[in-house]
Amino acid sequence: MTMLSSGVWAEAIPLETAHNLKEVGGNGVTLRSELERHGYLGHTPASYRSTPMSAHFELHIEQGPILEMEKQKIGVVNGVQAYKWYTIEVEGRAAHTGTTPYGARADALLGAARMIAHSNNVGHKLSALASTGILKLEPGSTNTVPNKVSFSLDIRAPEDSTVEAMEAQLKKDFATLAAEEPVALSVSWRTDSNSPAVKFHKDCIGVVRESAEAILGDSSLYQDMTSGAGHDSVFTSRHCPTTMIFVPSKNGVSHHPEEWTSDEDCALGAEVLCQSVVRYDRKLAGIIS
Amino acid sequence: MTMLSSGVWAEAIPLETAHNLKEVGGNGVTLRSELERHGYLGHTPASYRSTPMSAHFELHIEQGPILEMEKQKIGVVNGVQAYKWYTIEVEGRAAHTGTTPYGARADALLGAARMIAHSNNVGHKLSALASTGILKLEPGSTNTVPNKVSFSLDIRAPEDSTVEAMEAQLKKDFATLAAEEPVALSVSWRTDSNSPAVKFHKDCIGVVRESAEAILGDSSLYQDMTSGAGHDSVFTSRHCPTTMIFVPSKNGVSHHPEEWTSDEDCALGAEVLCQSVVRYDRKLAGIIS
Repeated sequence: MTMLSSGVWAEAIPLETAHNLKEVGGNGVTLRSELERHGYLGHTPASYRSTPMSAHFELHIEQGPILEMEKQKIGVVNGVQAYKWYTIEVEGRAAHTGTTPYGARADALLGAARMIAHSNNVGHKLSALASTGILKLEPGSTNTVPNKVSFSLDIRAPEDSTVEAMEAQLKKDFATLAAEEPVALSVSWRTDSNSPAVKFHKDCIGVVRESAEAILGDSSLYQDMTSGAGHDSVFTSRHCPTTMIFVPSKNGVSHHPEEWTSDEDCALGAEVLCQSVVRYDRKLAGIIS
Repeated sequence: MTMLSSGVWAEAIPLETAHNLKEVGGNGVTLRSELERHGYLGHTPASYRSTPMSAHFELHIEQGPILEMEKQKIGVVNGVQAYKWYTIEVEGRAAHTGTTPYGARADALLGAARMIAHSNNVGHKLSALASTGILKLEPGSTNTVPNKVSFSLDIRAPEDSTVEAMEAQLKKDFATLAAEEPVALSVSWRTDSNSPAVKFHKDCIGVVRESAEAILGDSSLYQDMTSGAGHDSVFTSRHCPTTMIFVPSKNGVSHHPEEWTSDEDCALGAEVLCQSVVRYDRKLAGIIS
């Protein structure tokens, strides 16, 4: 959980929950036991109440391909897009692939395949992203029509209303697709996660834009953008003026050994970060407007 | 493997291969060790050469819904449809679902979903059955576009040429679908199994039809059909005149606790089997024509 500490600071995640998180693999090691072992369990309360920040600027790799594709150096992040995660379960009837004519089938995988392809088409139409990363089926044999499929659906858009519109549309359309199979399928939705859109602070965004302009000297080298992924700034933005600065990611790859940003781009990002903090501070102090 | 013993008898499967088959679960138990334990390892050679049959009639549940749907009692089986099994591998590129716009995606699951839906459409067009019962993907996380999907494809039709035409069409179409994704996917095919169509012996089919007519007394209660699944008769038909008799399966379900055929239908099947053997025998002996 990369947003864990900021979640505790924002009091969105209880400290005990964070401390008790267990290592993947289940060796009984917890976050707290590791902090103790390394001597990192400090005494400063991780809370926005007792340890406030005046503002928060977060420098991050884009984790997407947009800056690289457009040959730009800095992303001025205006906010984080909304997303909702769902698990869709499609139920049909297991049947022998050789002896069951199409007309007698309730093929859960065929239905799920049509839903996944359809969600992509609707995403294009509504300017939202729909993605499926997990799909499980039963029983899983070459000559058996699957009776049950569950798949994840990840819907994202800069505005909450777009995500909601997409959800409503797909609920309607998936029901239609399920009913259109020769023997009707049943389909059910479960919402696993709901993260509304975050809008960063206009003063913070403003100083990042000014700093990018001052450092790059060319407005074609930076752009305003929305973060596709969640970040610590989602939590800090609830309690102090916040924004983010993006630098290019090679092929948009992240959380992978191939994640890479050039030295030059890292340095440019650090310069924009530093200048943004200084500019913001001077504005607060009334030195510049 | 339900066709194991007939495969050994037909010398299509080596005896040692059959004897060495291990129990699912891997407790070291083999088919041979179980035959010994039960006292069933006999001395009669399982070979069509030393232990020939004059003819083979196999009574089986349909394992499909056709007889039940059409309120019929007996299927006069003319042969077994051809089938080929394939594993299709689709490769794209893993990407973050939130940060990667549609235009930069090589979504292996989206491509696979389109291929599965398309194979069903082409199956309808060519009067063949295309089915997918297994689908695996990598890496399998809600917010990661899958970079790799493999799925099974089972193509069946009464004629070999239809299966071949379907394979050729889908190879062409899957390549097109792979190329049409924003970032092209790669797609590869592996043939796992190839079982050409089997045509049963006309004399055997003839006596089953006559017996069904004699016993049911109503030609609307039986029909000629092609077996969708493989059976021992596939192997025996290589070395002696062979055919099959089908009785209705409730909902077409088989290899499942819900598999069910009524007592009456079982009895009718046994009567047709008995009369077919007697009729065939009398024909061989020249008693009837």
